[in-house]
Amino acid sequence: MASSVLPTPLLKDELDIVIPTIRNLDFLEMWRPFFQPYHLIIIQDGDPSKKINVPEGFDYELYNRNDINRILGPKASCISFKDSACRCFGFMVSKKKYIYTIDDDCFVAKDPSGKEINALQQHIKNLLSPSTPYFFNTLYDPYAEGADFVRGYPFSLREGAPTAVSHGLWLNIPDYDAPTQLVKPMERNTRYVDAVLTIPKGTLFPMCGMNLAFDRELIGPAMYFGLMGDGQPIGRYDDMWAGWCTKVICDHLGLGVKTGLPYIWHSKASNPFVNLKKEYKGIFWQEDLIPFFQAVSLPKDCTTVQKCYIELSKQFKEKFGKVDDYFNKLGDAMVTWIEAWDELNPSAAAALPNGPAK
Amino acid sequence: MASSVLPTPLLKDELDIVIPTIRNLDFLEMWRPFFQPYHLIIIQDGDPSKKINVPEGFDYELYNRNDINRILGPKASCISFKDSACRCFGFMVSKKKYIYTIDDDCFVAKDPSGKEINALQQHIKNLLSPSTPYFFNTLYDPYAEGADFVRGYPFSLREGAPTAVSHGLWLNIPDYDAPTQLVKPMERNTRYVDAVLTIPKGTLFPMCGMNLAFDRELIGPAMYFGLMGDGQPIGRYDDMWAGWCTKVICDHLGLGVKTGLPYIWHSKASNPFVNLKKEYKGIFWQEDLIPFFQAVSLPKDCTTVQKCYIELSKQFKEKFGKVDDYFNKLGDAMVTWIEAWDELNPSAAAALPNGPAK
Repeated sequence: MASSVLPTPLLKDELDIVIPTIRNLDFLEMWRPFFQPYHLIIIQDGDPSKKINVPEGFDYELYNRNDINRILGPKASCISFKDSACRCFGFMVSKKKYIYTIDDDCFVAKDPSGKEINALQQHIKNLLSPSTPYFFNTLYDPYAEGADFVRGYPFSLREGAPTAVSHGLWLNIPDYDAPTQLVKPMERNTRYVDAVLTIPKGTLFPMCGMNLAFDRELIGPAMYFGLMGDGQPIGRYDDMWAGWCTKVICDHLGLGVKTGLPYIWHSKASNPFVNLKKEYKGIFWQEDLIPFFQAVSLPKDCTTVQKCYIELSKQFKEKFGKVDDYFNKLGDAMVTWIEAWDELNPSAAAALPNGPAK
Repeated sequence: MASSVLPTPLLKDELDIVIPTIRNLDFLEMWRPFFQPYHLIIIQDGDPSKKINVPEGFDYELYNRNDINRILGPKASCISFKDSACRCFGFMVSKKKYIYTIDDDCFVAKDPSGKEINALQQHIKNLLSPSTPYFFNTLYDPYAEGADFVRGYPFSLREGAPTAVSHGLWLNIPDYDAPTQLVKPMERNTRYVDAVLTIPKGTLFPMCGMNLAFDRELIGPAMYFGLMGDGQPIGRYDDMWAGWCTKVICDHLGLGVKTGLPYIWHSKASNPFVNLKKEYKGIFWQEDLIPFFQAVSLPKDCTTVQKCYIELSKQFKEKFGKVDDYFNKLGDAMVTWIEAWDELNPSAAAALPNGPAK
């Protein structure tokens, strides 16, 4: 019977679930049928003396701030504190090929037929099938069941590109910024869009870290969530930052980024007034940061994610260092992050190119 | 009572429905509640002596080959014969701001709740609301009811761009090429994806003419369906051709192209063996044509659709004239098309720029 509830799942030994939290992880009860077979990496944010309760039966490791400081030493400065950006420490200490990260206020959603959505399974499907970044397929994911490439899709492009990122969406509370939350406090997302699609090459998107999976071997070192929270002038731009960098590097290395299914149920909106305080500089800065990432060009000899990231940090500091000293700190932290990544992942550091420069 | 069945519809005096056909237009019966308030332009393909029956009560004008020859004189050579590409003559003779074109084997589809879909109404919604070509919104059309821009979407881009094209989709028989039809003869599209999205700037897509609406004033002269059918080496690339040219020009002029809703019910697949004969050169040629359109750059002084189109024809002939003499003919026909368009639309020819060069 147990096997019908918990069938041997896909990628069981190749995927870690990373959860940043400051509270008890009761939300895992609802995910038990889907998550229990996998290993969890829990990043405890805030006061390290507080005890986080993890429901019984889950296989996990937990890191608090003391652990992060002990493991990274001075390089721990690149990991944010009092902000869910700390989750990227989990990406770094994982030894698995794939990562799924989810917020602790996200629950199992239902599809229009009322069936509970196994979000992780859909992410795995997304990651294991190619992407189509070079030409748009109007019937969405051509690798999905019952779909294909439509008339006029070049045959030379039908093998697609390896998928590095699967960005899932949210029913109920949409991921709005503080101004939109303030203007539309009652808006709920009830639209179930039954599609997965590739974000075309050259197009940026707002990547949300709430329900996100990626191939660590292909793109891990780009999934740095920046300097946010305690002691920093902004918050709530951690995932956006990671999304801009990741997309630019995926485009350069010929990797794909998908968005759409799966949905999770986002249970509660964070406080818009608190959010506004965290966001306001980001709202202002993104008007210049996004055009920078839209225009940035990486040289051909950047053949690994690490090389791309270091190059990005250089160009970023050159352009924005004089705008605000925070950007100098962030640019330096990008370098520290890569050094720490390579220290904890020595084989990856010496590895072959992640992909061909395109 | 009639008013509840036929409410005064949107854009009643500003939209023509263009239908290419060789048969009786019985399919209009099913569309009556939605189409009857609008004016139809019927382009009769093939033998002009054959009589096309139009169901009673529709307001229409009908053009056969003799009419096209009479109206355009020698310039009629740019209008295809024995191919649905002839539909673009209807775009040229219309005097309305908006066009909706539909194939005569397309019927009213139902949404998942069983409600009949008013395809035209959704196209009008798409055309009357802006597009978002410069940054991807993960919750799809931010102007749709219950949706908005997500966190991280630059505020400076939230006004969007004027929408020039609305590309609708098909339930039942998907728009596959002959090889895919042959491999998957039984595949049916049953996936209703409840989304409209903007195809990002710089990304091409396979535009299908089966269920398509556009703003004639913004993009009309780019909606040339090329030389297909009788006397030409290919068919079934008419809409693809129009799609490549249109998207490149929309990108240049800062106009948006949407795809997704509405669905129509595509009733029957065309013969894959016949299709293969029409398509095989196109399947081969598109491998070079698409990279050309992906890379083409229009100069800043191309500030009208006409100027863009003439420039495209030049660059196209230069590059492909030596590949096959058909491309010389097609390049010349592009120029003829613009001349004929300006002759029939004299005020548009002398008009102000269609949009700013971006």
